[in-house]
Amino acid sequence: MSIGIPDAEFGQRVGTIQAELARRDLDALIVFANEGEPHNVRYLSDYWPAFESAGVVVPVEGEAILLIGPESLTYARSRSRLPQIRRLLAYRESAEPEYPGVELPSFADVLEEACGGRAVRRLGMSGMAITPIPVYEGVRAAMDQMGGELVRADDILTKLRQVKSENEIACIREAFRISTIALQAVLDEMRPGMTELQVCGIAQREIYAHGGEYEGHPLYVLSGTHSSHAIGRPTHRTLERGQVIQLDIGARLAGYSSSIGRAVSFGPVPGPVRAMMQAALDAENKTIELMRAGVAASQVAQQVQDYVHELGFGDALLYGACHGIGMMECENPWMETSSQYDLVENMCFQVDSFLHTDEVGVRFEDGVRVTRDGVEEFPTLEREIFVL
Amino acid sequence: MSIGIPDAEFGQRVGTIQAELARRDLDALIVFANEGEPHNVRYLSDYWPAFESAGVVVPVEGEAILLIGPESLTYARSRSRLPQIRRLLAYRESAEPEYPGVELPSFADVLEEACGGRAVRRLGMSGMAITPIPVYEGVRAAMDQMGGELVRADDILTKLRQVKSENEIACIREAFRISTIALQAVLDEMRPGMTELQVCGIAQREIYAHGGEYEGHPLYVLSGTHSSHAIGRPTHRTLERGQVIQLDIGARLAGYSSSIGRAVSFGPVPGPVRAMMQAALDAENKTIELMRAGVAASQVAQQVQDYVHELGFGDALLYGACHGIGMMECENPWMETSSQYDLVENMCFQVDSFLHTDEVGVRFEDGVRVTRDGVEEFPTLEREIFVL
Repeated sequence: MSIGIPDAEFGQRVGTIQAELARRDLDALIVFANEGEPHNVRYLSDYWPAFESAGVVVPVEGEAILLIGPESLTYARSRSRLPQIRRLLAYRESAEPEYPGVELPSFADVLEEACGGRAVRRLGMSGMAITPIPVYEGVRAAMDQMGGELVRADDILTKLRQVKSENEIACIREAFRISTIALQAVLDEMRPGMTELQVCGIAQREIYAHGGEYEGHPLYVLSGTHSSHAIGRPTHRTLERGQVIQLDIGARLAGYSSSIGRAVSFGPVPGPVRAMMQAALDAENKTIELMRAGVAASQVAQQVQDYVHELGFGDALLYGACHGIGMMECENPWMETSSQYDLVENMCFQVDSFLHTDEVGVRFEDGVRVTRDGVEEFPTLEREIFVL
Repeated sequence: MSIGIPDAEFGQRVGTIQAELARRDLDALIVFANEGEPHNVRYLSDYWPAFESAGVVVPVEGEAILLIGPESLTYARSRSRLPQIRRLLAYRESAEPEYPGVELPSFADVLEEACGGRAVRRLGMSGMAITPIPVYEGVRAAMDQMGGELVRADDILTKLRQVKSENEIACIREAFRISTIALQAVLDEMRPGMTELQVCGIAQREIYAHGGEYEGHPLYVLSGTHSSHAIGRPTHRTLERGQVIQLDIGARLAGYSSSIGRAVSFGPVPGPVRAMMQAALDAENKTIELMRAGVAASQVAQQVQDYVHELGFGDALLYGACHGIGMMECENPWMETSSQYDLVENMCFQVDSFLHTDEVGVRFEDGVRVTRDGVEEFPTLEREIFVL
């Protein structure tokens, strides 16, 4: 694959963090990743854990070290862009195997090693929302042992990852290209009587056939009342005529996710449902229209919210108009009325217009890159209501 | 689907935990789940989070409550076997949206509610290996507020889940049946020149076409040096003749996972690699032979280890002979020389024989249920070295 992130860019990421650590008087930063939330570790090392979890420690100067579980050494060596790799028991599988006879270093050992043999006075931690107890307690014990302090530093990684590089944008664009193929196949092949899960399988087949490395997120094929699920999973329910079928299909490539959402049906849906579909579609177009570099995120969110209220669907809203996309299908920053940032060129968002009652929901979702004048739309299908 | 866990069995699970809580003088138990590690929450509620995470609180008497993130209410209502559901901010997505205007209860609120309005003196926690900082700190703050104590209670859920019910066994058996179909399709259709990921897509297609609800674990299609990865992920590498291609293909159904592992090749592999394949296959058969109710797990692990040493491949071992299978493809208990339990009827294991050097690895993996006289083998393909 020619699309991907070159080694030099991984080095730049580490360098940018090191400059920030120096500014904050931090000796090092530690981040965590698991199977479903690999983002921070993959961003720094390209390593993507499976079964086990992982971490990266970035010292204020010197080499970053990838931290992995006991069984992942040959895998990590073949995959990591960071040459330094250490195995720690804290990153083992949740089944907690003991590995009798295997000797592994402690957090204090690897932190001290990363910092050139010096005790760590101030250690930052990013990604606290997903860091589990054994890692947290292991790191805290190490800091106690060294007489140091653990400092919340979530914003270091989230800020760094918000504005995408050219290589990152190329990965996201390609992931969306694969998503369009998968969604088109779903539209072509799905039939009444198939289960939601069988339709999901069509998308999975196409994602891997066309160069994807995984689903971009748990895929949505949610029919009838299931369409009301803001978050959901496909089931063995069979598709029926005249019902909303909510599709959110996304591929992942080189660590970058994508998703395209469309509310579709076999034959017409009842009038009020059709009206909600149209409102969601209008909100989706409106949001895209409002976005450009320099605009306050809260202003976009407020204007879209007001617009949906004007359309008569204010009660059908659950959350803000957009969320970031990148190494996670849903990542920082969200775009909410409480947001406190302005849009910046090369921020990438999922424009995500979801309206719902307790019985039915409709969603349109497309990916965009913020530009000086507006947005670049990532590859997608026609933004319309598909009646199959 | 007629295969699944009936409501009554979910009720029994809660009841068994409540009896154990009473024995330990605990007022309640709290467990956690995320997208990749749903097991404890799904075991108690059938709820399987996506994007957001989740928890369950089981009071020593009264109704258990499912705890979910802000966006999952309609989904959880349609899926949860526990009627009581509360939304908490701590279970939101890792992107940490703020949901301005949405009012949600605290941990103290839901713990007190679960315990009939009384302050909680002693709260157990299971699944600490995956519980993240916001939940841990939220729960600890609630206990501080109530003047109570947080107690490690990992073993309550792991012990309960180790011995499977008839319904659970039926789910696992069906998941293995789907896995055999998927693995057979892979063997029939894979060709030199395809990428590892394209082969993975064949398996994904079959899993969903034949009633699976998801992959049972991140699927392995690991060729050449990638076969040396005890844990790995498929890549864009193309398959070549004369190399080991490690396949581990597993479906999930009704929350229960499965996996079948075979080391295969297009045409013959070099002699020493073939010898390692044969040793892994022999170890796999030997392990199955040794298993039956009443035998010490450590004894099986030791005998298999000794046997592999006799075969001349002791240095190629990385871990114990088996691990539990159920709601996770790899779950408690592991079977290691340090294990301190005896095999019990209806424990289910993956017999997992992996031998590797830094350059090449081979694995055979099959699922079994422990019986009084030996094991029931779950559906699988012929246990042999496939040369395609």
